[in-house]
Amino acid sequence: MKNFLFLTLLILFTTSGFSQQALQGAGDIVSPEVHEDNSVSFRLHAPSAGEVKISGEWLPQENGNTIPVEMSKNEDNIWTYTTEPLPSNLYSYSFIVDGLRITDPNNVHQIRDVATVSNILMVGNGKADNYMVTNVPHGTVSRRWYKSPSNKDNPGRRITIYTPPGYEDSSENYPVLYLLHGMGGDEEAWMALGRTSQILDNLIAQGKAKPMIVVMPNGNYSQEAAPGESSKGFYKPNFQLPNTMEGSMESSFPDVINFIESNYRVKADKENRAIAGLSMGGFHSLHISRFYPNMFDYVGLFSPGINPFEKTNSPVYENIEETLKKQKENGIELYWIAIGKTDFLYKSVEDFRKTLDKIEMDYEYVETEGGHTWSNWRDYLVEFTPQLFQE
Amino acid sequence: MKNFLFLTLLILFTTSGFSQQALQGAGDIVSPEVHEDNSVSFRLHAPSAGEVKISGEWLPQENGNTIPVEMSKNEDNIWTYTTEPLPSNLYSYSFIVDGLRITDPNNVHQIRDVATVSNILMVGNGKADNYMVTNVPHGTVSRRWYKSPSNKDNPGRRITIYTPPGYEDSSENYPVLYLLHGMGGDEEAWMALGRTSQILDNLIAQGKAKPMIVVMPNGNYSQEAAPGESSKGFYKPNFQLPNTMEGSMESSFPDVINFIESNYRVKADKENRAIAGLSMGGFHSLHISRFYPNMFDYVGLFSPGINPFEKTNSPVYENIEETLKKQKENGIELYWIAIGKTDFLYKSVEDFRKTLDKIEMDYEYVETEGGHTWSNWRDYLVEFTPQLFQE
Repeated sequence: MKNFLFLTLLILFTTSGFSQQALQGAGDIVSPEVHEDNSVSFRLHAPSAGEVKISGEWLPQENGNTIPVEMSKNEDNIWTYTTEPLPSNLYSYSFIVDGLRITDPNNVHQIRDVATVSNILMVGNGKADNYMVTNVPHGTVSRRWYKSPSNKDNPGRRITIYTPPGYEDSSENYPVLYLLHGMGGDEEAWMALGRTSQILDNLIAQGKAKPMIVVMPNGNYSQEAAPGESSKGFYKPNFQLPNTMEGSMESSFPDVINFIESNYRVKADKENRAIAGLSMGGFHSLHISRFYPNMFDYVGLFSPGINPFEKTNSPVYENIEETLKKQKENGIELYWIAIGKTDFLYKSVEDFRKTLDKIEMDYEYVETEGGHTWSNWRDYLVEFTPQLFQE
Repeated sequence: MKNFLFLTLLILFTTSGFSQQALQGAGDIVSPEVHEDNSVSFRLHAPSAGEVKISGEWLPQENGNTIPVEMSKNEDNIWTYTTEPLPSNLYSYSFIVDGLRITDPNNVHQIRDVATVSNILMVGNGKADNYMVTNVPHGTVSRRWYKSPSNKDNPGRRITIYTPPGYEDSSENYPVLYLLHGMGGDEEAWMALGRTSQILDNLIAQGKAKPMIVVMPNGNYSQEAAPGESSKGFYKPNFQLPNTMEGSMESSFPDVINFIESNYRVKADKENRAIAGLSMGGFHSLHISRFYPNMFDYVGLFSPGINPFEKTNSPVYENIEETLKKQKENGIELYWIAIGKTDFLYKSVEDFRKTLDKIEMDYEYVETEGGHTWSNWRDYLVEFTPQLFQE
């Protein structure tokens, strides 16, 4: 009798169509398998396929294109590919079966980047250890909705908030990092692709970063929430949305700050506010911090877009030098710019640094390998956050 | 100059290999497309495929197996299938390309059920309207970690908590529903597959359900968190885990209640506590509410597993009739059992009802069409929650 439920569950899982897939997915094949030497094996059971390739972020590129490599089929019709030992990182990958790009049916760990879902894997014993959930105290991640009165079309907006370990058990006030996504992203991007909560948990546990609140708003003014999380229902995400770089995000940003400062125990002063973002979020961070020149002591521009994007008469983009000077005069602890050597925005960042040099504004500049990638942005977050709020 | 960033971003997205996939994913094909009459079209670009089928939850079953249907290829090598008008629901589906089951590359909306990731879509104008994000006030969903001192192996455990709209802005105390997942599930299941936060937002806005906190713990004693969310890293989920139905979940449950009642503004009494669960979670709800017979005024057993699963000497499963009688004597507002007519657990529920009849314990019994499915469990949640805390 004690095994009745187990047996009946087994029957269920071999008779129901949908669940049979679940059983199939839970079968014998392990993919990916990360070996001890950091090489990785991938496997796919595809008896009818004529050709299976794998494309992944560790593979060499030619003219910016990853060159997929062929997998080979064994006698059980399992296509396999094993990499060389890989540097520690988070990698995305996909299979290409007779020309059709698919996800790995044996790997449930996936991330969405704009309109593409890819599998991911972690290779540890290095920098990716900071991206992993480890046995340290964990912060809380909340998805909330707040009112943005200055946004007429979408006053209700979704936001992701990380509060550090211990927040709920103390009466302390905390500093705040506002962390902004790039074009095509939303309030989920820094969590899923950026591994923000894992990075903060680990850096705080190591004593490298101060406990801080991290606020990840949606930077698309015309979008109330990430795809599937709004009243627009399920739809295919777009890379480019209207009203992202024409001043509305910047001019409505005090709504975000007001919401956080009236709902969380924060240190509500310039010394305890930081803002950073990647690509479009770097653009937003540049202009928000300059347009409100007495708001932030810490600014991080990760591979930032520099120039206004849409035709606009917004006052946000007027008097750039003047307001940067104002920001400089008000004092700033850290103005941090990072970009990869092959980033397509490299030249515009170079030009922007000339502007900063001209007005004699101090900044730190970090030049890394690589281009416009999440791998770099995770690195930048790991390097940037330990420099915050260290007074 | 104003279009510089746009142009350079376009260049990026046509030169980077990974991002080229993002552009590809964001291409012209729309799949699924829900038409006005609730029929749905699916599309897949697969020039090399010899046969493409689609399997989905709306399709008829034979001996419990969904029978996939063939898609047809047009001159652009796009395989298409259009359904009849469908009853409103959330449906999962997948494509089968020359025998290989794949997800729809044009649909980023997916859910994981144990080890299988499937695409989902919503057909509205009916019950699925309750599963959608609508323009109503939204609650907050938090992923937190709590200490469970009675769990020696995994004292730190992840938990999902829904607080209703207005929670943060009031000083009110709220009633609490503890909502438990089934075998193979975890603290994400009721959110992703059960659409709990959307259902609660909608029912509360309609005045049908009282504002309440919903607590979704991980019911696998040996698992600290959902796959990918624990220090075990990324791995392939198992349907069956050790130590799920041998008493440890039940005996450690006061740790969950203590955590909630010392961290949230709750009405901490029997009248304001409810517990419900599906399948294994129904088993847990039955035994937790009986083992602590003065804890809950509301109990919901959704397609419950009834019999102990593992060989156990746990006191939790002793004196079942006696403790049920105790529970009855202490008074209970609602003991609600629901099951589908074709559920493989139907017989054991029938037997359990005889036990309840024998001790003259009142309960409400709801028998529905269908079997052991998330479609039923969402229905049960929609029917159960309005009956809670209505004193």
